[in-house]
Amino acid sequence: MSDGLEEPMGLRHLTSIHDLDDGDLAGLLDRAAFFDREPAPRSAAMLEGRIVCTAFFEPSTRTRLSFEAAAHRLGARVIGFTDPATTSSAKGETLEDTIRMLAGYADCIVMRHPVKGAADRAKAVSSVPIVNAGDGPGEHPTQTVLDLYTMRKHKGTLAGLKVGLVGDLKHGRTVHSLVPALLRVGAKPVSVAAPGLELPKELAAKCPASTLDEAAAACDVLYVTRIQKERFADGKEYDAVKGSFVVDAALLKRTKSQAIVLHPLPRVDEVATDVDALPAAKYFDQARSGVPVRMAVLASLLEKSA
Amino acid sequence: MSDGLEEPMGLRHLTSIHDLDDGDLAGLLDRAAFFDREPAPRSAAMLEGRIVCTAFFEPSTRTRLSFEAAAHRLGARVIGFTDPATTSSAKGETLEDTIRMLAGYADCIVMRHPVKGAADRAKAVSSVPIVNAGDGPGEHPTQTVLDLYTMRKHKGTLAGLKVGLVGDLKHGRTVHSLVPALLRVGAKPVSVAAPGLELPKELAAKCPASTLDEAAAACDVLYVTRIQKERFADGKEYDAVKGSFVVDAALLKRTKSQAIVLHPLPRVDEVATDVDALPAAKYFDQARSGVPVRMAVLASLLEKSA
Amino acid sequence: MSDGLEEPMGLRHLTSIHDLDDGDLAGLLDRAAFFDREPAPRSAAMLEGRIVCTAFFEPSTRTRLSFEAAAHRLGARVIGFTDPATTSSAKGETLEDTIRMLAGYADCIVMRHPVKGAADRAKAVSSVPIVNAGDGPGEHPTQTVLDLYTMRKHKGTLAGLKVGLVGDLKHGRTVHSLVPALLRVGAKPVSVAAPGLELPKELAAKCPASTLDEAAAACDVLYVTRIQKERFADGKEYDAVKGSFVVDAALLKRTKSQAIVLHPLPRVDEVATDVDALPAAKYFDQARSGVPVRMAVLASLLEKSA
Repeated sequence: MSDGLEEPMGLRHLTSIHDLDDGDLAGLLDRAAFFDREPAPRSAAMLEGRIVCTAFFEPSTRTRLSFEAAAHRLGARVIGFTDPATTSSAKGETLEDTIRMLAGYADCIVMRHPVKGAADRAKAVSSVPIVNAGDGPGEHPTQTVLDLYTMRKHKGTLAGLKVGLVGDLKHGRTVHSLVPALLRVGAKPVSVAAPGLELPKELAAKCPASTLDEAAAACDVLYVTRIQKERFADGKEYDAVKGSFVVDAALLKRTKSQAIVLHPLPRVDEVATDVDALPAAKYFDQARSGVPVRMAVLASLLEKSA
Repeated sequence: MSDGLEEPMGLRHLTSIHDLDDGDLAGLLDRAAFFDREPAPRSAAMLEGRIVCTAFFEPSTRTRLSFEAAAHRLGARVIGFTDPATTSSAKGETLEDTIRMLAGYADCIVMRHPVKGAADRAKAVSSVPIVNAGDGPGEHPTQTVLDLYTMRKHKGTLAGLKVGLVGDLKHGRTVHSLVPALLRVGAKPVSVAAPGLELPKELAAKCPASTLDEAAAACDVLYVTRIQKERFADGKEYDAVKGSFVVDAALLKRTKSQAIVLHPLPRVDEVATDVDALPAAKYFDQARSGVPVRMAVLASLLEKSA
Repeated sequence: MSDGLEEPMGLRHLTSIHDLDDGDLAGLLDRAAFFDREPAPRSAAMLEGRIVCTAFFEPSTRTRLSFEAAAHRLGARVIGFTDPATTSSAKGETLEDTIRMLAGYADCIVMRHPVKGAADRAKAVSSVPIVNAGDGPGEHPTQTVLDLYTMRKHKGTLAGLKVGLVGDLKHGRTVHSLVPALLRVGAKPVSVAAPGLELPKELAAKCPASTLDEAAAACDVLYVTRIQKERFADGKEYDAVKGSFVVDAALLKRTKSQAIVLHPLPRVDEVATDVDALPAAKYFDQARSGVPVRMAVLASLLEKSA
């Protein structure tokens, strides 16, 4: 396990989960575990004097706050914006020029953008590290790392882990990034898709379909995602689908004894609140893990550029 | 007087003025006095490494900035949001889930919410201290503490203090919380209500009515509140009422020699600007006192959980 | 050159470039150079424990972020707002009362306001230093200082420097403040105005007109500004004008060998992207210089009030 002080990465930016080779990924998971210890390690001074810019061209309060908490926990300072209407983009400035400007103010740019590929465009012109915090239907690599981190933390290992992916598997960057990452680390994902919301073909081929009951009985991890009402033309159809993909305390009695439930949040009804108090409920810890995982990412990128 | 380092409270959250027993309240006032000293005490390191989240589900720039200044003066870091439209609440997330998420990122949550009872709902699920910075028509306990603090600071004591409450006493959380607190510390509130804007019955019974002239002659403190135009169906009626509840330099010539004027701000016309330069005008110092009072609250809550 | 630790100014506020006498200006430029050194000097502790408030009554992300970065680089903390709709101004509070409130929370107020003269009104009531970060068509003194700073940095001196001002010279605070400042330091501005967008008469008298080709051949600095489409009644007229005031790589082959190109940014098309990679392109360094220049301003004002 890392002492949190070494550099696990030869990484300069993190815009895709593919930027991480196996060693990078293992290093990040170890380093996140270091930062996740209780009581918290004395890591405050690690990035003292550094400035992280959270450039949110579209709002995402959860992601922004966990990156900002991570930066502060390492002693860095934070500048940023959350409202693209107030930036120079509104005056016709290109993304490239905005990034060059921000790179003159900060030591690292964490960016969220509605357009796929925006983070790669930023990387091409930035003099400081870029972290992709979501580019539309593209990537959100730190979400994938924190998903893997939470599984490993609670199940001890990733290799061989049976992971049931439940809900809307068609839309949503989260699952699309998670499946290849799970396969890479040797986990065994199965899909429990709502009808019409199946995985894209290339992923479905590697991810056997299952029913919710079968998955509950067989899996170590149930990874539940939100089914968005607006995906359905017909409200009744939505209600029917929704009801059959609820993970609740009754279902959990039929799972493996040590199975855990994850969810990228926010949830609506797909994980019943009667699960919250059960030992299986790890989705709030998963959310909390966003901080140590993002500490690991920021520390690794910024030590590099020190 | 406190040296600012001890713990006056067995308090875990502060969502209501009733959370504070007499010892808690006295301890907070002493501690605020410590932080209010000039030159400022070297308190910067007290909350170093801690993160305070300002979760403003409705905007209140004044309250937010004074809490953030208080956190920074103690060396804490701040994350937060001011626009509920950009949070997951907009996607159907419950308040409880949002609070659980924030409690994973920060060491304390200062929350403002438009719905009464929101802070108590938050307290029920939060693993970190909750400070209620206003929940609709509910409570805003640090405002009450800073009102008491400012009176004690300038008048030396609270017991026996005659406090004239002037303006709209019907609406407004501020006065409704202040009256019971004044009674509890042995002060003697009187009410000078605009017609139709009298105190609710249960408070009016403990708070004799007075005219503005009588109150000015008898009181040690005039606590003036804003009369909001939108409460009146008829603009002319508003103008008539408004004009008869103005505290100006001429009125202050008829007050007790050491009487002071307070106002929770913002004011519109109800305290004339010709009062600003008079020694009686303490409303800007009252605003400023929000910082040491909130430092006392944050320090007390966070040392506890250290 | 300053060691960054002395006080170059007897200045209490900075609301106009005219607040700076020649010694103040030279001191600021020297101090900015100190903060601009690579590797960055250990200046983090200089304003530790201080709070800077960025009070943006209208949004300006670029200016706000560079001031906040400057404050953080000096170890100060930052509070602020960017959306006037959420402040008490919306409830009828005067600018003066808002400023008195902020002055109770922070040690310095950096303000942006849509109305000319707002910064001077603030200065009149503030107990802490006011920095004008733009008051409508009024002043934006730190922009002027950073423009001079960038010219001096790359050309070695300001006296005798030939500066071609290109584009919309009629509107825009930037050029109107820059021309008198250039004259004061002994530089020689010439104007290359788009038709109908000439300098106001009093400035034009001191600033000979030129064509873009002549200016390119003669000047040490081309200072290009954006021509805003909305200034033209007729889109075709705009297109014609716009096209004839583009600085591109081809034009730069006809400039003096060491000439540089500046632009306050954001740019649209008036500096072609084929210039970006040329040694002449200094507009991104100019943007970056906003940080050391604003560090110099904040350090000078806040040491004073320590």
